[in-house]
Amino acid sequence: MTQYKQALNGEISPAMEVAARRENVAPEFIRDCLANGTAVLPANPAHSGLRPVVVGRSFTTKVNANIGRSTEQSANSAELEKLQVALDAGADALMDLSVGTNLDLLRRDLLAQCPVPFGTVPLYEAFSKAGGNIDDLTEEFLLEVISEQAEQGVDFMTIHAGLLSAHVPLASKRVMGIVSRGGALLAQWMHHHKRENPFQSRWNEILDICSRHDVTLSLGDGLRPGCLADASDPAQFAELDELGRLVTQCRHQGVQVLVEGPGHIPFNEIQMNVERQQKICQGAPFYVLGPVVTDIAPGYDHITSCIGATMAAFHGASLLCYVTPAEHLCLPTADDVKTGIIAFRIAAHAADVARKLPGARERDDALAHARKTFDWNKQFELALDGETARLRHQQGRCHQDDGHCSMCGEDFCAVRKFSQLKQEAASGIRK
Amino acid sequence: MTQYKQALNGEISPAMEVAARRENVAPEFIRDCLANGTAVLPANPAHSGLRPVVVGRSFTTKVNANIGRSTEQSANSAELEKLQVALDAGADALMDLSVGTNLDLLRRDLLAQCPVPFGTVPLYEAFSKAGGNIDDLTEEFLLEVISEQAEQGVDFMTIHAGLLSAHVPLASKRVMGIVSRGGALLAQWMHHHKRENPFQSRWNEILDICSRHDVTLSLGDGLRPGCLADASDPAQFAELDELGRLVTQCRHQGVQVLVEGPGHIPFNEIQMNVERQQKICQGAPFYVLGPVVTDIAPGYDHITSCIGATMAAFHGASLLCYVTPAEHLCLPTADDVKTGIIAFRIAAHAADVARKLPGARERDDALAHARKTFDWNKQFELALDGETARLRHQQGRCHQDDGHCSMCGEDFCAVRKFSQLKQEAASGIRK
Repeated sequence: MTQYKQALNGEISPAMEVAARRENVAPEFIRDCLANGTAVLPANPAHSGLRPVVVGRSFTTKVNANIGRSTEQSANSAELEKLQVALDAGADALMDLSVGTNLDLLRRDLLAQCPVPFGTVPLYEAFSKAGGNIDDLTEEFLLEVISEQAEQGVDFMTIHAGLLSAHVPLASKRVMGIVSRGGALLAQWMHHHKRENPFQSRWNEILDICSRHDVTLSLGDGLRPGCLADASDPAQFAELDELGRLVTQCRHQGVQVLVEGPGHIPFNEIQMNVERQQKICQGAPFYVLGPVVTDIAPGYDHITSCIGATMAAFHGASLLCYVTPAEHLCLPTADDVKTGIIAFRIAAHAADVARKLPGARERDDALAHARKTFDWNKQFELALDGETARLRHQQGRCHQDDGHCSMCGEDFCAVRKFSQLKQEAASGIRK
Repeated sequence: MTQYKQALNGEISPAMEVAARRENVAPEFIRDCLANGTAVLPANPAHSGLRPVVVGRSFTTKVNANIGRSTEQSANSAELEKLQVALDAGADALMDLSVGTNLDLLRRDLLAQCPVPFGTVPLYEAFSKAGGNIDDLTEEFLLEVISEQAEQGVDFMTIHAGLLSAHVPLASKRVMGIVSRGGALLAQWMHHHKRENPFQSRWNEILDICSRHDVTLSLGDGLRPGCLADASDPAQFAELDELGRLVTQCRHQGVQVLVEGPGHIPFNEIQMNVERQQKICQGAPFYVLGPVVTDIAPGYDHITSCIGATMAAFHGASLLCYVTPAEHLCLPTADDVKTGIIAFRIAAHAADVARKLPGARERDDALAHARKTFDWNKQFELALDGETARLRHQQGRCHQDDGHCSMCGEDFCAVRKFSQLKQEAASGIRK
């Protein structure tokens, strides 16, 4: 029975209890949010070693890391390293977007080492297994892959079921067209096979598999805009309307569901995008990729996107898919993975503070106190990346006195100066 | 005669014409914004080689880089290198915050190589010249330094005239107290000399100097919050009220004026802070430092702050002071300067796009078009940091085919796939 069905029955599962402890809320609250669909708890029983994490706008904002081989780069060992780097940097969820051969072996190894919810895009494996030949990719074949991955323990799957053949002409009018790998594949498939989206044709069977294995459906946005010029356009919103319809069907079948979103969106349109998704998808958790707020900074898209992610999370997105500095240029390295996660942990945390989530600011306040008292070790302990901060501080030090840093030097340290002044003033009063 | 007085007289100066060409607006529009005080054009006639830049919410958002020696680190040659790096990365303004000996020589060299508006904090030089001894720092001495710097060609000066002795007890209640170097120095000065803020005592003489040399006053926020816990507190807003009063006096004397702002501000309070400043300071341009939106990421404060800067600029801040990865840890290196500028150019541009400034999105659209057509050279040409982007792309390339990148590989490239599909569909229609 899925976590959703248990919640609807009023039951509290062990997974709900684990998630509740992590969020510092009552398990009943987790249950209620699962039951009303504003949260999901991706927890495939076959994923051993999983520490379940709740995703929803009533809880801390979560960050997902995408890893995976491309057909041209990386090896299983490199992806296993990226998994570890992502976890160490604080990823709350992980997706393996690998394409190529023998994906089940890599996935088995990743799953075994992944204590956070693990996601995939089954279409990638299906297309890889079909040898990259769209004609050999059958509906039966897609179902097989979904079923195998569900049995293997995948917690959530991106299924681009909302992209209909009628939407493709809308995307043709765009600057960038379709930039989603899954979206482009499906458009090609529908064109070649002269059939509707295969996920729609086999929708009930997919829901059956997800219900049986408690796989959370992550409804993919195959028509997410790939540049600012394409943002918030008829293609994007036509697909969103369809995603809203599919959310209802998932709920009828007791399947957990979240909805994926853009992409490239100007900063001023982010609030509207989140609110529109929340309305159309009846509060289903919104899982955004960035969004990137300008197209002019390749090499720095972890920054362009964490700006957008902060705004999106502030207005109600619950899961942020990181973007790395490699975006638009090459496959990310392990370093890119770390940089991407840190940028998005900043976005998620800044949004949680801004949403006034209970306790969210405690770590900031503790760090500020350590900063005021020049307790550098405590600062590094509390920092998102204490190792990097410590290294920078040490590089800048001229002598052993820890009562200031090289930014201002001892004579010009405002914090030191004002502390001394307060002490003087206090002793003056006592005299 | 200051640019402001000329504007009030209905005159259009050569500096206004230069700024108008850069902004792609009519010189009359620049004049009108200067006349109503919503813009400033810092342009000290003694600064030879200056290309004037207008700062105001009706124009593109500008980015300032702080450089300068501390008493413990760096040398003049290193600061001259940082100046060049900042300019190359796209700084619109530059402040020399050096402390220590022989500051006039460094400043002379920096000014000679600085085609953008150049700012200082005269209090730093005065305190340095007083040998770091607060008792030797007299009001006469402060005036002398301000006058010398104005003669030398400094375009804008941070003067912390709004911090009154009555505000200090408010700051004592904070977690971080006073974190502004100038603010802490003034609090110490007022305590030792048992006198009011020296900038207030000599206010009319300061306005005289600024009026004579057309130095733009940048009213410093000595009580900017130094952590989220201190944000938007009585100390900060008491000083802001005083800054509003001083803006009126600057305008009466024909002196150009902008107002400095925080600092560390939770994301949800940024809009309110900008709107409050704009109201209290009668539309005077708002010059913000960041703001940092979380305290937990030392080593990544270029990111925590460019998130806040985007939000601030979107709501009306006109000049963004960058923050580098070195913030809170050590004096920035030349690499930090570059990283800080890029992060803040992203913030400024994302906000300009979001504010729908005419033409702001053209560069994004051009880059998107180059991306769609796999014109990598054009992408790098249009990128904020094309060199870095090119390097990353080359590192990831496996062969010479430029029609995709290693992120997805050839078979899974959505853009390539969808372009082919469109061609097929088009030829199908033609058949």
